[in-house]
Amino acid sequence: MNKNNIKVIAFDADDTLWVNETYFREAENNFASLLSAYETKNKIKQELMKKEIANLPLYGYGIKGFVLSMVECAMELSNNRLNGKSINEILQIGKKMLEKPVVLLNDVELVLNNLNKKYKLIVATKGDLLDQEKKLEKSGLLKYFHHIEVMSEKKENDYIKLLKHIDIQPENFLMIGNSLKSDILPILNIGGSAIHIPFHITWEYEQVNSDNLNENYITLDTIKDLLKLL
Amino acid sequence: MNKNNIKVIAFDADDTLWVNETYFREAENNFASLLSAYETKNKIKQELMKKEIANLPLYGYGIKGFVLSMVECAMELSNNRLNGKSINEILQIGKKMLEKPVVLLNDVELVLNNLNKKYKLIVATKGDLLDQEKKLEKSGLLKYFHHIEVMSEKKENDYIKLLKHIDIQPENFLMIGNSLKSDILPILNIGGSAIHIPFHITWEYEQVNSDNLNENYITLDTIKDLLKLL
Repeated sequence: MNKNNIKVIAFDADDTLWVNETYFREAENNFASLLSAYETKNKIKQELMKKEIANLPLYGYGIKGFVLSMVECAMELSNNRLNGKSINEILQIGKKMLEKPVVLLNDVELVLNNLNKKYKLIVATKGDLLDQEKKLEKSGLLKYFHHIEVMSEKKENDYIKLLKHIDIQPENFLMIGNSLKSDILPILNIGGSAIHIPFHITWEYEQVNSDNLNENYITLDTIKDLLKLL
Repeated sequence: MNKNNIKVIAFDADDTLWVNETYFREAENNFASLLSAYETKNKIKQELMKKEIANLPLYGYGIKGFVLSMVECAMELSNNRLNGKSINEILQIGKKMLEKPVVLLNDVELVLNNLNKKYKLIVATKGDLLDQEKKLEKSGLLKYFHHIEVMSEKKENDYIKLLKHIDIQPENFLMIGNSLKSDILPILNIGGSAIHIPFHITWEYEQVNSDNLNENYITLDTIKDLLKLL
């Protein structure tokens, strides 16, 4: 990465700007407790994960698809015997997730306030459109961003479209995020730059085998370290 | 509307470019049949509609939120007694909706092919991000559009943001759609132009009391009539 070339910096949102995966883990635990009469917690979580991935092409990312997958998984694990009260509780798990407050990660605002004086900042996030927009609004961070892009997927082709849309060349584009699979590797593959800031938990589906990694990216411990680098 | 001022024409998608509401009516009927042991079809549809509207701020528009509302409504109407098989059938209603083929309305392609030589065409639609993107891809219409905007809501403020985003003045913007509430009135209120092309069914939530209407818009019977006008 040649920092003098960078004009636009895109930030992932969930687990890069604010806490997210923690809420999914919490929801999975609550779901496993509800189903505990039928299976071990470990098995329940494994089946839920399979169901989520099987439904991704149809439902996409985000909480609503996650809840629909929980309902479907619950019916399968219980042989359609789960009681109505528990079905309602699954819906409530989803509603509570959608109503969670936005908890910024440490130093996020400090970093954005500093970087937006030197670069054009955008958000590039995937998930439910309305949910991501509401979180951005609740976060109080909208003022730092020139553009918000909610994407249905974060693969190479999606980033090519994004770059075309904001009219920027890959060599002038830096992506910052917690997911190697979604935020880092596709950007490197299309000629952009990327900085990885891991979050302490990663959704299993986002995990990549680090043996075959393109090593051409920087990893930082915290978002504050960006200020030394940029 | 002074047609010489128009530079950008935005089309609504559902029930303007292709069939949509028909599938929701069909789904509601199937839902009412599933619950017919508990209530009249009429009451079931009324309760579902109430549930959808109550959940809109949390779920937004689109099929996934609709399915979650169906599950919630089913549990309420059956006093949590609906059997697991029927819960699965509700999920299947949703999956079938998401897999429906895209059926273009008559003459849509003819009209877009003609107008895109004279104007910059965009799509301005609300609903689930992934679902709307997939429908556009399946429709074969992407080549006619300069930009696709999937919006979480279609109120005045959302259109103001859209116009800012595509860098166009209201007097140069024409919106075409089937919903007075979402496609026509907010555009007129911010100084743009609008053409209403009604679809034969309108979701109750989108209906407006025509007594208080701003009359400053054109209504056409079919999309083909645009070619005489523009």
